[in-house]
Amino acid sequence: MRLVTFERNGKATLGIREADHITIIGEQTLESVLARGVDLVEYARQHATDERVAIADVKLLPPLSRPPKIICVGLNFSDHTSESNYAQPDYPTLFFRVATSLIAHDQPMIRPRVTDSAGLDYEGEIAVVIGKGGRHIERSAALSHVAGYSLFNDGSVREYQFKTPQWTVGKNFDGTGAFGPDLVTADELPPGAKGLRLETRLNGQVVQSASTDEMVFDVESLISIISEAITLEAGDVIVSGTPSGIGWAREPKLLMKAGDVCEVSVEKIGTLRNVIADESVN
Amino acid sequence: MRLVTFERNGKATLGIREADHITIIGEQTLESVLARGVDLVEYARQHATDERVAIADVKLLPPLSRPPKIICVGLNFSDHTSESNYAQPDYPTLFFRVATSLIAHDQPMIRPRVTDSAGLDYEGEIAVVIGKGGRHIERSAALSHVAGYSLFNDGSVREYQFKTPQWTVGKNFDGTGAFGPDLVTADELPPGAKGLRLETRLNGQVVQSASTDEMVFDVESLISIISEAITLEAGDVIVSGTPSGIGWAREPKLLMKAGDVCEVSVEKIGTLRNVIADESVN
Repeated sequence: MRLVTFERNGKATLGIREADHITIIGEQTLESVLARGVDLVEYARQHATDERVAIADVKLLPPLSRPPKIICVGLNFSDHTSESNYAQPDYPTLFFRVATSLIAHDQPMIRPRVTDSAGLDYEGEIAVVIGKGGRHIERSAALSHVAGYSLFNDGSVREYQFKTPQWTVGKNFDGTGAFGPDLVTADELPPGAKGLRLETRLNGQVVQSASTDEMVFDVESLISIISEAITLEAGDVIVSGTPSGIGWAREPKLLMKAGDVCEVSVEKIGTLRNVIADESVN
Repeated sequence: MRLVTFERNGKATLGIREADHITIIGEQTLESVLARGVDLVEYARQHATDERVAIADVKLLPPLSRPPKIICVGLNFSDHTSESNYAQPDYPTLFFRVATSLIAHDQPMIRPRVTDSAGLDYEGEIAVVIGKGGRHIERSAALSHVAGYSLFNDGSVREYQFKTPQWTVGKNFDGTGAFGPDLVTADELPPGAKGLRLETRLNGQVVQSASTDEMVFDVESLISIISEAITLEAGDVIVSGTPSGIGWAREPKLLMKAGDVCEVSVEKIGTLRNVIADESVN
């Protein structure tokens, strides 16, 4: 099942997406549904109304606008670790995003105005949405904690990312974290979203291409290792890492500018598309 | 005014603290009150009930249990930067904490069981609670965005902090971020909480002592610089950095073990006290 969150009468509304239409479930958020601990597919079937809207007529929101946590994984494809001039750590490299950085499919990704030369770079990734929380989750049980998968473009302002030893600010500018369009429930995908082709395109040119099999820490390992330290909660999002091909590591650098179109596609999950826009000056 | 959040009939309850008693405001959170954009002191005065409880009879909670963001500042005292073997960055070094890591005053700070030797270290800091959000906040207006100040012990699991290039996991173990006890409204303190003595004591011994004047980036600068990148929201917490004296930088290392008592005191704000406990094995 594919679930989407969209704006209707100014409120976040949940629906089931089939092809180009949405069957409305109602005014609610995935955060609140997941927090209740229900089975997402069953809940959506039981609460689907008769009302439908065309996907072309609505403004999509991120699947979750206020996840309890957005846990991003850096250096999770070894060729990306190499291009970034890091040694491959033997533990997942974690950083957080905050909700203020999120944008939806088809919303502009914002190149900030803090400096003319601040490079905005793409990072195509799979987002894992936690359905059932826990601590010290065993690897063997990890996938039973996943509600579904979506796409993420971890837009990175590289100059700010490397101003200090911590990447945080370069990963958290407003309007740089694209998330969506659909939450694809876990039953629709191979376990752990394994063996899927991930591709990022900038203005139609393929700039990243890898199999999710190449992840250094797979979804099971991420859930298990993270939860040794941190309680995972329903609605948490794990953004699982990007493969090689980022613009910052190219010679010359390939950075995004206003009007560019960036797309992240993963087989069986879909395509997340965003146009780049400069931050407005008011 | 000093505000505290405590548990009453299983619910978060807000109150005004005076000496050893609390005047109850009601079942609500500082997050929700601040989100309404009201003046905190005025709101508290208007909504105070006639009901009082002794502080000794309640279980305190962190002033906010679910801040929209917890933005921590690393390397913000130059002598701490030196002892940590970093060059002083000319931009604030930011990392996030998540709410699952928070504990209150007088709750045990948890030394995790992931490894026998995992060092749990203290970091005494001032927490700045944002009352009014914004983006691109001018330095000159920054302090008008502060609701008040509290104390933080940024308990750090050093081995995990340095497993990868990002400190995140070492800063986010469950039960390691002590926050409280009171939120002291900004009107009670010098502007920007400047010129205050910050002291951390481990089992009564002073292990950190500095003036808040020594911060590389003062509160105004932090608010202004962070908001160039990230929208600040009412209820956000900025944990403003620790001075030198951490246990990990000592020879031999001074790490906390079960039964140790760690206290963070700042003049005019108060004392945050936590006993260390080992994570239970179930």
